[in-house]
Amino acid sequence: MSKISPEILLTFINLDRTLKMPLYIQLYEAMKQGVFDGMLKHGDRMPSTRSLAAEFSVSRNCVLLAFEQLTLEGFLTGKTGNGTYVCEQINELKTGIRKIKKAVATGEKNLMASEMADLPLHAQFVANYIGQEAMLPFQPSIPALADFPFQIWAKIAATVYRNIRQLHLGYDSAQGYLPLREALTDYLRMNRSISCTADQIVLVNGSSQAMHLIAELLLKKDEQCWMEDPGFLRAKSAFARFGAKICPVPITDSGMDLDYAMEHFPAARLAYVTPSHQYPLGETMPLMNRIKLLKWAAQQDMWVIEDDYESEFRYANRPIPALKGLDTFGKVIYVGTFNKTLFPALRIGYMVLPSAAIAQQFTVAKAVIDRQSPVIDQAILTSFILEGHYTRHLRRMRLIYRKAQEELVALLRSELGDYLRVTTADAGMHLVAWLLNGQDAITVAHKARANGIYIYAVDELSISFKHPSALIIGFTGFSRKMMEEAVIKFKQALYPHGFFN
Amino acid sequence: MSKISPEILLTFINLDRTLKMPLYIQLYEAMKQGVFDGMLKHGDRMPSTRSLAAEFSVSRNCVLLAFEQLTLEGFLTGKTGNGTYVCEQINELKTGIRKIKKAVATGEKNLMASEMADLPLHAQFVANYIGQEAMLPFQPSIPALADFPFQIWAKIAATVYRNIRQLHLGYDSAQGYLPLREALTDYLRMNRSISCTADQIVLVNGSSQAMHLIAELLLKKDEQCWMEDPGFLRAKSAFARFGAKICPVPITDSGMDLDYAMEHFPAARLAYVTPSHQYPLGETMPLMNRIKLLKWAAQQDMWVIEDDYESEFRYANRPIPALKGLDTFGKVIYVGTFNKTLFPALRIGYMVLPSAAIAQQFTVAKAVIDRQSPVIDQAILTSFILEGHYTRHLRRMRLIYRKAQEELVALLRSELGDYLRVTTADAGMHLVAWLLNGQDAITVAHKARANGIYIYAVDELSISFKHPSALIIGFTGFSRKMMEEAVIKFKQALYPHGFFN
Repeated sequence: MSKISPEILLTFINLDRTLKMPLYIQLYEAMKQGVFDGMLKHGDRMPSTRSLAAEFSVSRNCVLLAFEQLTLEGFLTGKTGNGTYVCEQINELKTGIRKIKKAVATGEKNLMASEMADLPLHAQFVANYIGQEAMLPFQPSIPALADFPFQIWAKIAATVYRNIRQLHLGYDSAQGYLPLREALTDYLRMNRSISCTADQIVLVNGSSQAMHLIAELLLKKDEQCWMEDPGFLRAKSAFARFGAKICPVPITDSGMDLDYAMEHFPAARLAYVTPSHQYPLGETMPLMNRIKLLKWAAQQDMWVIEDDYESEFRYANRPIPALKGLDTFGKVIYVGTFNKTLFPALRIGYMVLPSAAIAQQFTVAKAVIDRQSPVIDQAILTSFILEGHYTRHLRRMRLIYRKAQEELVALLRSELGDYLRVTTADAGMHLVAWLLNGQDAITVAHKARANGIYIYAVDELSISFKHPSALIIGFTGFSRKMMEEAVIKFKQALYPHGFFN
Repeated sequence: MSKISPEILLTFINLDRTLKMPLYIQLYEAMKQGVFDGMLKHGDRMPSTRSLAAEFSVSRNCVLLAFEQLTLEGFLTGKTGNGTYVCEQINELKTGIRKIKKAVATGEKNLMASEMADLPLHAQFVANYIGQEAMLPFQPSIPALADFPFQIWAKIAATVYRNIRQLHLGYDSAQGYLPLREALTDYLRMNRSISCTADQIVLVNGSSQAMHLIAELLLKKDEQCWMEDPGFLRAKSAFARFGAKICPVPITDSGMDLDYAMEHFPAARLAYVTPSHQYPLGETMPLMNRIKLLKWAAQQDMWVIEDDYESEFRYANRPIPALKGLDTFGKVIYVGTFNKTLFPALRIGYMVLPSAAIAQQFTVAKAVIDRQSPVIDQAILTSFILEGHYTRHLRRMRLIYRKAQEELVALLRSELGDYLRVTTADAGMHLVAWLLNGQDAITVAHKARANGIYIYAVDELSISFKHPSALIIGFTGFSRKMMEEAVIKFKQALYPHGFFN
């Protein structure tokens, strides 16, 4: 074995005394780099610690520490007395890499193995649901964050932090923070006519996670699943991801067309519905249909998933009670979220299960998937609800959103009345507008988005049943000035022959 | 149709003027309840609003509002002029329910459809990983929260809240808060010898979520997967959940037995390893084995999952660089977490993927599963890192944990030296102790837990390869006094013939 003289080391090791990094670490890093760069080869004998210390004007302890770490990591071997050697095989790493790398560096795009891989990867999904969402007109479901009482929220947060030692910051129940579940039972009873106990509730990160838990626990491969069409794509992709057969059901002015569904897909194991306010068309499912659906669910042993999104924002009459409130059969799973009523970056949603026993099974699933949701935000939210801020906030937002919709409808009618028929929304955060002149909504939506106006076509959410003239226009979260400017830009997208021609 | 007289209504409607609930809502609720209770039957004609108003001494408007809502919900029908009727079919709900309910109320326990269902439902998993975890000796992986700088954390939180309008609180990138990913690249370079860019990082809720994303994206059904045995059950259950074939690989004093794995399962597509500090036995994988593993991974096109749990807490030498730092082939996926270094209820972990393109695919998967992680805590953590508190905290914890281990080892040796041989841990949050007198570790662990001492047997984490005398004993997070008391209780569990016999 060749002896490495200190001179050789010197050619590639430079210690920099102006750096904060301790000298022994610099030495360690430099020697390791030497191995990777091929300056130090396997079997090479290292100089003595004494001579290295002298060479670099460092303490001998400094060299010893570097050697010790390199030995621990397997770069060096041998006892100090016998001499220290660069480990054998070490350079194989480099040589091996070069040989193999070419053979391996193929097919990075085919990385995804499961069915999930292809599902959401089409361009629209990636564009709409993965990046940071523009909070620009007329993106739907954007809360008016300018009107969110962050001062109150921050004040509560400060109180929570002052008493932080009272919170359990270790691993908490996967079911979610108990005081929040308790606060929710009261809220749901008073506002959604749902009578449940805290042990029927499972807290989740949002409705997406709820849909995935549902899909995984309740659906076997190839089982049929009624899906509103057009409808909420995230629910569809969750069910499809676990191999369910998606059965598109058209929408009537009573919401999901139950007769169609019962006739075409009588064997379905699960139905996804938005009875308070069909997404995206906005219809409310009347009581008769609700009863019909519940009876069918009981007879056929079918689960009903009630996604009660945005039902808090109802502009006519009281909020309509939840389907879950009628669920004497125990077949309805209710899904709600705070991400739309408060702010999306919060990530707190919830499920109401038919029984504590079923909730326990969902808790297991939640625990398996991501153990639990973060606790501090749940504690802040609990106080926000218990101190009455939540219902006050909802009441205030209802007025703000109602006014925003009125303003937008007036604007659209006066500026774009020749192009659009606007249907006002009784609830929620968007309205539906219908193109009058035979223009295709998807084309218009693309042109509008290219122009910075975040409008979507209903058909971008459809599976089989088309509404080629329908557009989704969000009206929450934007100032009057933003909406006025956006309507002008929107008009440009509606001109059949380009801008201002 | 029979006419309902106001007298009939009176028998079940009582308005309570002392309640905060508005009278029209009380009226509405009472009438709806009347329908469900069978007091109002379908086709029944409602009394006139005028007579009802007189009967209850309320304004006519109050009655009109109640009727309006009931009509909207489908309980009532008809125009006021023509008379208002209870909707037909309405009672079918009740009758239907009674008939069907008995037939349906079967098999609630067989609710779970997918493979996931059975997997984690065995009692131990439920007990250990779902409920609130006791922060009692000698539960492993419990941070010393008494020493966590919550004052600093709260101060940063207050600053974040003061500038909350600068945060994007709408839907953010599913990949995670960009400034946190940037801060992580520096941290990983300096502390784990990992050189990566922010677009290779995906933020997740914790290592459980990382394992599930990995399983779903990288494993096809029946593909083989090397699993350390004993090892991290959550990773195993994640891989098994998506149909992978778990291949148990025994542990040597160099960590996973690579020769065994290569000989027995050459076709494996994925290997799960904890090279810094094997979980739970604590061995470090030496450099030679790391190189061997990486070369094999490149040749066989196998993914290597490096779970770098608790590597921040190293008590001897510098932290050992991550396997990922040697990964010139691009086959290693690195998983780290803040939930153990800071506090478990935080729920922030991260993955480092081999390339931005692969990270983009994991981002899609994360977006599909739960859209994104909460933003405010990510912002607080970013400042905590950038202001130097994180490395300071780790340094401080290292000293505290080292001292705690020394104290516990001394205690165990002096009090239980006849029963146990203690192996000190070079890193992490638990040590391994070996029973000397032929006692079975699982039996001892059960007895200890029944006595309030949270000790686990290594074999509770094993698949095929047993270490029947090995116990896992956490040493972080407990005061000296707690440990002293716990050792006495532990001693009781070690007495072969019950307490103090």
